[in-house]
Amino acid sequence: MAFTDIATRVWDHGWRLDPIVRSLLDTDFYKLLMLQMIRQRHPDVRATFSLINRTTRIRLADDIDIAELRAQLDHARTLRFSHKELIWLAGNSFYGQNRMFAPDFLAWLARFRLPEYDLRVVDGQFELHFEGLWCETTMWEIPALAIVNELRSRAAMADKGRFALDVLYARAKAKLWDKVERLRALPDLAISDFGTRRRHGFLWQRWCVEALKEGLGDRLIGTSNVLLAMDNDLEAIGTNAHELPMVAAALADSDEELAQTPYRVLREWQELYQGNLLIVLPDAFGTAAFLRDAPPWVADWTGFRPDSAPPIEGGEAILDWWRAQGRDARQKLLIFSDGMDVDSIEQVYRHFHGRVRMSFGWGTNLTNDFRGCDPDGDDGLSPISLVAKVISANGRPAVKLSDNPAKATGAPEEIARYLRVFGDDGRQARTPEI
Amino acid sequence: MAFTDIATRVWDHGWRLDPIVRSLLDTDFYKLLMLQMIRQRHPDVRATFSLINRTTRIRLADDIDIAELRAQLDHARTLRFSHKELIWLAGNSFYGQNRMFAPDFLAWLARFRLPEYDLRVVDGQFELHFEGLWCETTMWEIPALAIVNELRSRAAMADKGRFALDVLYARAKAKLWDKVERLRALPDLAISDFGTRRRHGFLWQRWCVEALKEGLGDRLIGTSNVLLAMDNDLEAIGTNAHELPMVAAALADSDEELAQTPYRVLREWQELYQGNLLIVLPDAFGTAAFLRDAPPWVADWTGFRPDSAPPIEGGEAILDWWRAQGRDARQKLLIFSDGMDVDSIEQVYRHFHGRVRMSFGWGTNLTNDFRGCDPDGDDGLSPISLVAKVISANGRPAVKLSDNPAKATGAPEEIARYLRVFGDDGRQARTPEI
Repeated sequence: MAFTDIATRVWDHGWRLDPIVRSLLDTDFYKLLMLQMIRQRHPDVRATFSLINRTTRIRLADDIDIAELRAQLDHARTLRFSHKELIWLAGNSFYGQNRMFAPDFLAWLARFRLPEYDLRVVDGQFELHFEGLWCETTMWEIPALAIVNELRSRAAMADKGRFALDVLYARAKAKLWDKVERLRALPDLAISDFGTRRRHGFLWQRWCVEALKEGLGDRLIGTSNVLLAMDNDLEAIGTNAHELPMVAAALADSDEELAQTPYRVLREWQELYQGNLLIVLPDAFGTAAFLRDAPPWVADWTGFRPDSAPPIEGGEAILDWWRAQGRDARQKLLIFSDGMDVDSIEQVYRHFHGRVRMSFGWGTNLTNDFRGCDPDGDDGLSPISLVAKVISANGRPAVKLSDNPAKATGAPEEIARYLRVFGDDGRQARTPEI
Repeated sequence: MAFTDIATRVWDHGWRLDPIVRSLLDTDFYKLLMLQMIRQRHPDVRATFSLINRTTRIRLADDIDIAELRAQLDHARTLRFSHKELIWLAGNSFYGQNRMFAPDFLAWLARFRLPEYDLRVVDGQFELHFEGLWCETTMWEIPALAIVNELRSRAAMADKGRFALDVLYARAKAKLWDKVERLRALPDLAISDFGTRRRHGFLWQRWCVEALKEGLGDRLIGTSNVLLAMDNDLEAIGTNAHELPMVAAALADSDEELAQTPYRVLREWQELYQGNLLIVLPDAFGTAAFLRDAPPWVADWTGFRPDSAPPIEGGEAILDWWRAQGRDARQKLLIFSDGMDVDSIEQVYRHFHGRVRMSFGWGTNLTNDFRGCDPDGDDGLSPISLVAKVISANGRPAVKLSDNPAKATGAPEEIARYLRVFGDDGRQARTPEI
C-alpha cells in the first residue's frame, strides 16, 4: 500500500513558481541596521545598485532563463513584512539591546516593498540595475544575489536524475559535517553564518545553519540571515557594509571632504548604535590609508572587520595600530569574513588565539560548497563571485578601492582620483574570493 | 503554510510495529532453489537451524528487546506468498531458464508459512532455534538474520536526534557512492548484491541496490534478494549453500558414505538444475579435500564459489585443479563472496582478469558499512558476524569444517571425526569475515 496525499500531488501538477525569496526578512541583518540609518539620515539620497559578475567566464544569461529571473524578482516585489516579522523585530533584543529599531522605522517598514528593477541581457550577462531612493534600492542587494545564485544552481541541477540529486546532497551534507567536526575542535571559536548572498539555495542554507546549531552549539554565535535567526532562535549578526562610505564618498564635494568620509560615516553610525555594533569596516578605500589618517576616537570602537586584506597580515596591521593607540587588543574584536573556510579559520584562529577576541563570518564556503559532490562532475554548481554594489549616488559615480584591487569597483578615472586622495599603501591583488 | 497529511499523522500516533520482513520473497534466491530440491527429495528430513553470534563481545540480548524480537518473528510467521509473487516466480525466467519452479512446488509454496521458533536468552545472547521439517525450517535463515540485524541497528539509532540520523545516512550514501565510482572503473566487472542477511535494514539495502543499478549499469548482474530482484527488474542471483552437504553428511551412515557426501549432493543438484546454477561450493569440509577426491565430472560444472579460503589462493587452487583436469579456466566461472569490499574486489579482479570468468557477491560491506558514518561515534552500527546454521538433521549433529577454522560449526568430537575423514589440508585461520 502506498499513501499519497492526493491534494498535494494535484497541486504539484499545476506547479508554476517555486519562490526563492519568500520573506523580506530573508536578507542580511546589516541591511536592516543600515536601512534604519539611511532612512533617518539620508531619506532623499538616490542610489543605484547593480549586479556585477566578477566570474566573467560564466555567462549567466546562457544558464539562467531571463523569464524565470523576472518571475522570481517579481515575486520578491510582492512581499511585505508580515505582522509576525515586525513584532519580532520590535520585541527581540539584538546584541543584547532591546528596541534596536525605532517605532517610526518599523511603521515605515510595514509599508515597505522592493522597488522596480531594470533587467536586460548584454553579451551573455545580465545587466540588472536598481535605481531609486537609497532606502529602497539598498534592500535589493541580498534577495537579488540569492535569486540569481539559486537560479544558477537550479539550472545546473535541472537535468539531473533523482538519484544523482540524492547522492549530491548526501555528499554535501557529509562534507559540511566533516567541517563541523573540525571546527568543534577549536574550544572558544565564535562563528556565524554569512552565507545568504552566495548560497546554493534557501533550503540548503537552512540545513547548513541547523547543522552548525546542532554541531557547534555555543560556538555558533548566530546567522546574518534574519529569517533564519528568527526561525531558529539564533542571534542575528551583522553591522555595516561598504555602501555607507561609498555613498558618502560619492556625495563629497571636494577631495578634502572625500578624505574625511570614512570617519564621518563612523560618527554617524555611533550616534545610532553601540557596543558590538561598533565594528569598523576599514577597507573601502584601503585599510592602510584608513589607519594612517584615523582620528584617535576610532580606537574606542569595539573592533574591526578586515574584509579584503589577507586575514593574518590585515589583522596584524590592526593590532599594530591598536598598540600604537595604547589599546589592549585582548579587549578588542576582529571579525574575519573574507572567503573563509575551515583551513583558513583554523589558521587564523591559531595565529591570533589569546591575543585578540575573534569571530568568523562563514559565507560561500559554508552555504555553497559542492566541490566534488556532483556525481556527474559538472561545473555548474561551483560558486561564482557575484556581487550587487552601489554604483552611483545622486547621479555621481561610486567607488570602492578595497585592499584587493581585484575587488575594486567604479569607473577607472574615479578610481584614479580616489587613489590620489587615499594612496595605494598595502593594497595587494588576490584572486577574488567567492 | 505547512501541509500535513492528517490521516497519515494520526495513523502514526498509533504506531505499533514497523515490520522488518514484509514478504516471504525478502530472502535469498538460493533458499528457493534449495527449497525446491529439499521438498522434492527430502520432504521428511527434519533439520534444526540455530542462530550463532560469532561476535561474542556483542551481547545481543542487552541491546535488543526480546519482546520486539518476538513481535518481528511473529509478524514474519503471518506472511504468505502473495498471488503476485507466485505468478512472478512462475512466469519469470531465472538464469535464462523459464519455468525454473515446478507447478506442484509453487502450489505447495502458496500454502507455505514459516514454522514455529524457540527463543530464550542465555548469558546475554539469544538462543534462537528453528526445529521441524527441513523444508520449513530452512526458510527461517534469512528473515531471522535480517530481523536480528535490523533490530540491532534500530536499537543503536533509537536515541539519535533527527540531525544525527540525517548526517549518518548522508555519510553512508556518500561512502557507498565513492565505492560505486571506483567499481565503475573496472570494465567488465560482474557483481551482485549478496547483502540481505547482514543488512543494516531493508530500506537501506533497497537504496544500496538502487544505487548499484543506477551507478554500475550492466556491471550489476543482479541481487540475491528475490523481492528486490522482482521490484527492480533485476536478475535473482544464487545457487546453493552449505546446508546441503551438511545435512547429507549428518545423515551419512558410515565414514565412507560421509567422504562421498559432497559429490552425491552435486549429483542431486544437477538432476534439477543446469548451466550457471552448476556452481560448486567446495569448502564445507575443506576445499583441498574436496578437490583431491573429486570425480572428473565435477570439472563439467560451470564454476566454483570459494567461500572461506583467501580469495586469490583459493581461486588459484581451483584454477590448478581445472588445469589438471584438462579444462580451460577461461570458460569457467569463479564467484567470490566472502567478506568482499572494494579493495579486495579490485585486487581479485586484477589478479584473475583474462584468466577466468569472475563474478562477485557483495554482502555486508555493501549493505551494512556505516564505519565512520555515525556523528556520535557509536559502535552499535558496526556489523557483527551473525549466522543461522543447520545444527542437526534427524537428530544427528551437523558439522561444517570450512577452509577457515574460525567458521567451523559443530560439536568438537564430530569436527574431529570429520577431520579424520576429510583431512585438514589447506585450512587456515582468518578473522571471520563479516
